[in-house]
Amino acid sequence: MSRSQVRNILAIGTTAISAFCLGSYAERHLTSYHSTGGQEKLSRLPGLPVFGTVSAAALIPANELNRAATPSRISQIMKYGFPGLDNVRSQSDYVLSYDRRTRVPHWVFEHLTAQSVDKNSDVDRAKSNFKPDDSIHPYFRAQNTDYLRSGYDRGHMAAAGNHRLHQKHCDDTFLLSNMAPQVGQGFNRDAWNTLELHVRKLTRIYANVYVCTGPLYLPHKEDDGKTYVKYEVIGANAVAVPTHFYKVIVSEAAADNKLHMEVYVMPNRVISNDTPLQVFQVPPETVERAAGLLFFDQLNRSQLATINGKKV
Amino acid sequence: MSRSQVRNILAIGTTAISAFCLGSYAERHLTSYHSTGGQEKLSRLPGLPVFGTVSAAALIPANELNRAATPSRISQIMKYGFPGLDNVRSQSDYVLSYDRRTRVPHWVFEHLTAQSVDKNSDVDRAKSNFKPDDSIHPYFRAQNTDYLRSGYDRGHMAAAGNHRLHQKHCDDTFLLSNMAPQVGQGFNRDAWNTLELHVRKLTRIYANVYVCTGPLYLPHKEDDGKTYVKYEVIGANAVAVPTHFYKVIVSEAAADNKLHMEVYVMPNRVISNDTPLQVFQVPPETVERAAGLLFFDQLNRSQLATINGKKV
Repeated sequence: MSRSQVRNILAIGTTAISAFCLGSYAERHLTSYHSTGGQEKLSRLPGLPVFGTVSAAALIPANELNRAATPSRISQIMKYGFPGLDNVRSQSDYVLSYDRRTRVPHWVFEHLTAQSVDKNSDVDRAKSNFKPDDSIHPYFRAQNTDYLRSGYDRGHMAAAGNHRLHQKHCDDTFLLSNMAPQVGQGFNRDAWNTLELHVRKLTRIYANVYVCTGPLYLPHKEDDGKTYVKYEVIGANAVAVPTHFYKVIVSEAAADNKLHMEVYVMPNRVISNDTPLQVFQVPPETVERAAGLLFFDQLNRSQLATINGKKV
Repeated sequence: MSRSQVRNILAIGTTAISAFCLGSYAERHLTSYHSTGGQEKLSRLPGLPVFGTVSAAALIPANELNRAATPSRISQIMKYGFPGLDNVRSQSDYVLSYDRRTRVPHWVFEHLTAQSVDKNSDVDRAKSNFKPDDSIHPYFRAQNTDYLRSGYDRGHMAAAGNHRLHQKHCDDTFLLSNMAPQVGQGFNRDAWNTLELHVRKLTRIYANVYVCTGPLYLPHKEDDGKTYVKYEVIGANAVAVPTHFYKVIVSEAAADNKLHMEVYVMPNRVISNDTPLQVFQVPPETVERAAGLLFFDQLNRSQLATINGKKV
């Protein structure tokens, strides 16, 4: 039995659960497979059974099913690969990996288009409420009380303003599993918001924008000559306050199908509003090493036309 | 199609790769399944194909195959559940989950018997060499140079002395993916070693001893009234120096099949040699919340006869 046949067997079973919780080996290799229209291809393989009736519903509790994205939507969001596979959750319009130790995400992945970020009078973020994510075990679940009087905002990783097609899409971005503590004035409501607006503006130029967002806990040297990682934790559940946040963005041009990557790292503190975004650009490897993740690993970097505006 | 049928389909594909890298959903539910003799059970299920010839070799590079444990050995080690599923690796006589951000394990799982810890003149730890784990991506791989002149020992999580059946078992414990920086004199070579000896001694009383070992990064309050996590990182690859280490142990009595749990947390610093081990006992939930892991979750805690020597 060839490697590809084994992979396809895995595909059958895995599709059934992919909307709930994604396995580690299979999906990494299935991402591009799904996105090229898996089912047709599968049925043509000789000697392999097709379980066309296997539904995600079989394994997903009713309350999870309501909020789960369709497998095809997950495949679209994750088209270029999963940065990691720890505690993956799919919501209606984004996918995240949850860090049970820090109670904030490892990464949150979004797929944006001009349509999904467009103002929509049917969708109002004021109707959305911050709420704990019941799919996370209580031991590791952030609560609103953790943030209360902490001095930090509940900072969206998948921004509410990126998900305006349906109220449900917007609502889902208010799950606390999509949050990390962010400095409010001067960061979340300022420089970080500017970066989010920049990402949305990319949809005016590019047909598809893929954006991965998450926290970093960067080391610093102290007077004793040693290097330390230090971060605050807030509330009874010890929710980590990241020292920095990253965004890794890949934009697909409609005209020539060319791909452009931008990578930003911002410190979680007050940033002067006149600081240009370019100041925060770093090579993708810098974020990968620090985060323990591999971004867009279904893409060879040589397939990118530019990284941070420079030809590859 | 029932939930259990879906699970069994997953089982078929997953067995093929379980020795290499374990998926997230399936294995959590397959652990007990494997351990009750999966293949016979499977072949009796009507309408389900059995891919008896699918071999782990199909997906495992030759150098990985040499060091991989058999699926049945993995099932035995992991009999009571995976604490987490991030970057799982199986070695010849232990299983670990690697934390790519800290470059040390999340957890390392061992199954000990009187035989496996017994002195064996064919096995000599002096013949084993500390070596980087090539199965980890270079960005996240700890190197011997990271530890050099750091002031810390390369501290085994799966102890070399627990794996004396074959030289290969001992050798595998010297992979740097099984290490974390430990204070040497006064900890690794003293109090921590005492704990390791205690675990080995349990095999004289109990038929099977399951032990899970790993790092913790515990918060502390500072003068500003806020709570912080702070830990040193060493070397070019910023290998984290954990603030504490844990061991969660479940021992199976041969006579009455009763299960006994012990849980220890030790600070990664010089500990006086006259400190009794009991001082370091904590409830399992304490470690679970801090580590972001769930230990022995295939066991209901009410199935345990004792926790830390006290009746459950």
